[in-house]
Amino acid sequence: MDKHAQAGWFNRLVSRRSVLATSALGLTVPAVALGMATPESTAQTTSGVTKKVTIYAEALPGGLFGYGLARGQATIPGPILECYEGDTFEITLVNTTDQRLSIHPHGVDYTTDSDGSPLNASFNNPGETRTYIWRTKEMTATAGRRWIPGSAGYWHYHDHAMGTDHGTKGILTGLYGALIVRRRGDILPDKQFTVVFNEMAINNKSAPNTPMFEANLGQRVEWIAIGHGTQFHTFHLHAHRWADNRTGYLEGPSDPTPSIDNKDLNPGSSFGFQVIAGDGERAGTWMYHCHVQNHAEAGMVGLFLVRNADGSMPPGAQEAIDRFRGHMHSATQNSSMPGMDMEHH
Amino acid sequence: MDKHAQAGWFNRLVSRRSVLATSALGLTVPAVALGMATPESTAQTTSGVTKKVTIYAEALPGGLFGYGLARGQATIPGPILECYEGDTFEITLVNTTDQRLSIHPHGVDYTTDSDGSPLNASFNNPGETRTYIWRTKEMTATAGRRWIPGSAGYWHYHDHAMGTDHGTKGILTGLYGALIVRRRGDILPDKQFTVVFNEMAINNKSAPNTPMFEANLGQRVEWIAIGHGTQFHTFHLHAHRWADNRTGYLEGPSDPTPSIDNKDLNPGSSFGFQVIAGDGERAGTWMYHCHVQNHAEAGMVGLFLVRNADGSMPPGAQEAIDRFRGHMHSATQNSSMPGMDMEHH
Amino acid sequence: MDKHAQAGWFNRLVSRRSVLATSALGLTVPAVALGMATPESTAQTTSGVTKKVTIYAEALPGGLFGYGLARGQATIPGPILECYEGDTFEITLVNTTDQRLSIHPHGVDYTTDSDGSPLNASFNNPGETRTYIWRTKEMTATAGRRWIPGSAGYWHYHDHAMGTDHGTKGILTGLYGALIVRRRGDILPDKQFTVVFNEMAINNKSAPNTPMFEANLGQRVEWIAIGHGTQFHTFHLHAHRWADNRTGYLEGPSDPTPSIDNKDLNPGSSFGFQVIAGDGERAGTWMYHCHVQNHAEAGMVGLFLVRNADGSMPPGAQEAIDRFRGHMHSATQNSSMPGMDMEHH
Repeated sequence: MDKHAQAGWFNRLVSRRSVLATSALGLTVPAVALGMATPESTAQTTSGVTKKVTIYAEALPGGLFGYGLARGQATIPGPILECYEGDTFEITLVNTTDQRLSIHPHGVDYTTDSDGSPLNASFNNPGETRTYIWRTKEMTATAGRRWIPGSAGYWHYHDHAMGTDHGTKGILTGLYGALIVRRRGDILPDKQFTVVFNEMAINNKSAPNTPMFEANLGQRVEWIAIGHGTQFHTFHLHAHRWADNRTGYLEGPSDPTPSIDNKDLNPGSSFGFQVIAGDGERAGTWMYHCHVQNHAEAGMVGLFLVRNADGSMPPGAQEAIDRFRGHMHSATQNSSMPGMDMEHH
Repeated sequence: MDKHAQAGWFNRLVSRRSVLATSALGLTVPAVALGMATPESTAQTTSGVTKKVTIYAEALPGGLFGYGLARGQATIPGPILECYEGDTFEITLVNTTDQRLSIHPHGVDYTTDSDGSPLNASFNNPGETRTYIWRTKEMTATAGRRWIPGSAGYWHYHDHAMGTDHGTKGILTGLYGALIVRRRGDILPDKQFTVVFNEMAINNKSAPNTPMFEANLGQRVEWIAIGHGTQFHTFHLHAHRWADNRTGYLEGPSDPTPSIDNKDLNPGSSFGFQVIAGDGERAGTWMYHCHVQNHAEAGMVGLFLVRNADGSMPPGAQEAIDRFRGHMHSATQNSSMPGMDMEHH
Repeated sequence: MDKHAQAGWFNRLVSRRSVLATSALGLTVPAVALGMATPESTAQTTSGVTKKVTIYAEALPGGLFGYGLARGQATIPGPILECYEGDTFEITLVNTTDQRLSIHPHGVDYTTDSDGSPLNASFNNPGETRTYIWRTKEMTATAGRRWIPGSAGYWHYHDHAMGTDHGTKGILTGLYGALIVRRRGDILPDKQFTVVFNEMAINNKSAPNTPMFEANLGQRVEWIAIGHGTQFHTFHLHAHRWADNRTGYLEGPSDPTPSIDNKDLNPGSSFGFQVIAGDGERAGTWMYHCHVQNHAEAGMVGLFLVRNADGSMPPGAQEAIDRFRGHMHSATQNSSMPGMDMEHH
């Protein structure tokens, strides 16, 4: 991971903590403890908390834009925003740019004032500050012994006003991020990674500058995958798989959900899942990439470094990273390979 | 909604009533009453009704074609055809055009005679009338404590013979419609909207001439989304979400289905779901659109007007409609906006 | 089906038998007996068998490549590899070509040594033999009363090293196949068909040379669909439908899975399902095809011949096959059709 990407990543981690600090739900206690999870049966409270978050939309070098939780801290993608069903987000969006822009969420509830669309005159003019309210709720009973789904999901937010009424310029240049609404009882992760396939890039970067995500063997890692732009993509993660449902886990032996390791990731869609890093027993450097062949070749590839449980590097992991970066520093098991053509320069 | 689209829409509503009138199942009683739903336990009858429907395939202005339930009544999309598992459709297709064409259904059962494909010599020559039989059934037990699914689903029908053996010309020019097979006990909607993403248009129209769907706050609204053509799309509806399964509802707390508000809608696929208009509390003018950015920009956008519960217009709703149509009639909350570039002209 | 395709198909059937012969699980007993299925409750053994399989990667005429279970037996797609959760594959890949290549599996567990990627220096140089280990497992309990999914699924394997680090040349030229991991208790099929949508071809063939799959009315047929390349596709099968979940069957009346007959099949993705040929009562010649209109027109169409239960040809079936092949041998119900333009030459 290059320094810039790394800085962005660290910023994001810090940012996330900031968001959670605004919560009354104690999400910032160590993840290990949170992993024990509140039983669903005790979580049927309907009163949520209100999370007041100030987000700064800022210009970044290279014609990019980003959302951040403090001035000068904008990242691509923006901070992960998360809450439990029943909570409310009160987002104060500060537009520090000279562009019209907004923030439009998926999955949650909002009035037309908070739609984030020019259609509803819901946006920030240049320099303007505006508040958007996003509400969430638990599932509710309806006719026919069925339930209207609650807000829980791996959602996302993005600009809907820069350049065009659909925010095409804002999305293209980095104004997007992950939004997670959890159902009480959901398992909390040790780490979180946001992967946005946007045009022919990942988080607006191409290999080898795409994010290198890191975890220790056995850690519970949450991936939030988001699609944007005009291209179709398929997200593939090596050596891990997940159930293609709301959580990535099965509810039990009669849960019909298929397991997958490759999933369509097209504009406006998002999904998330948790895996145990290295599946609990196979540390190493693993690829995640778009499986559309010419997209992978064009640089839609990144690395998931699964360290040993103690944080040390497993054999071969650094060599793989070096290959990815185009610098072959050490001999490998197949060191005589003549055709080792690394396209990731 | 322009007059032509409106006429089409009203015709479709009338058409739908006509189809249901042929049913012995009483689907035309008020939806409120039907919403109480027959319990599944009493619905395991295997005898269905036969619905005899005459459909007219007709040429429309502008090189388009449509299916209709009476001469001169063809619309794009064609009428919603619906039944319960166990019922049979006996479709008499009258070809009033000078083209070879057919009707090919998804999801239901048919013999090669009713395949609607030139492969099986199943089509109408110009001027010809031909009958197609579509059967449906309930789920049946099979080995391993599993069940072969019944016919229930949000399906569709389309031409499979005009222009080429795959009906490429017929599909391109409007010969398609929704086909719903319900399982007994399913919740019936108050309103139904058919949205067909076909090439770069919605129901063969571009914004601002795309359909404006209307409902009152709290009404149960059923969307049937169908994909056609050669492009990939993603269907997004603002301010509403649904469970990504057969009904759009959850079966209960252990139903693993994810909730979504954006879904791939690619050629030959269809899905449906029900939502409560405005989610029961947020009236207004909401967009539905393809989330592929350049498709939205090119006009794959329409409006879902959620009126107040009493049918009156909520604040700002008309202004949004006017903006969509490119006529700014009134001041808005952000009336000073300089960059209000409406691409929908 | 042309002779070459037929030979490939027969070879594949033979190949499959060869793979299963290496199993200690008795998968080669007649499918009818296997169809009775081991009850899940008695299948919770954690000890699996190790299946040692030698696979030969070979050059084929026309610049193609294939995997096979014996020298000179390579086919496109390669042999179906299948096992139960808990089993291990020990794949000895013999590279008989002058190209760098590998075998990379989806869904199963492997260390970086068996990744099949140049990133992890896991590939066969020209002429080299290398062993890849793929492990599988059953579901395991985790926090929150949820389960980490086991390995069961309709997966696939493919080259990840020929031409580029992503195996783009290998995949393009035929180095792919199906990999099935079954959960104990799963229903075993009578027949299996592998359908790979790869660029604008099916199993690297175009109509009318695409595979014609055959079954007798009532046989339980398993389809494994795999996507590859750079294009997006939708797989459609006429006159049959399946539940869009792990097995294609429903678990019972409260299983929320939708039924479908058309599904996205994009690069790197795979799915599988079982259907009863002709739905148990409708023999005939049925199309399967990509529903993207211009892909179907370009030849992404094949036939599924459902014979009568006794293996005889149903009325009209041969005529349909002849039409598909572009040779009209007999009169048909609509023999006067002037516009019968067969694009499949």
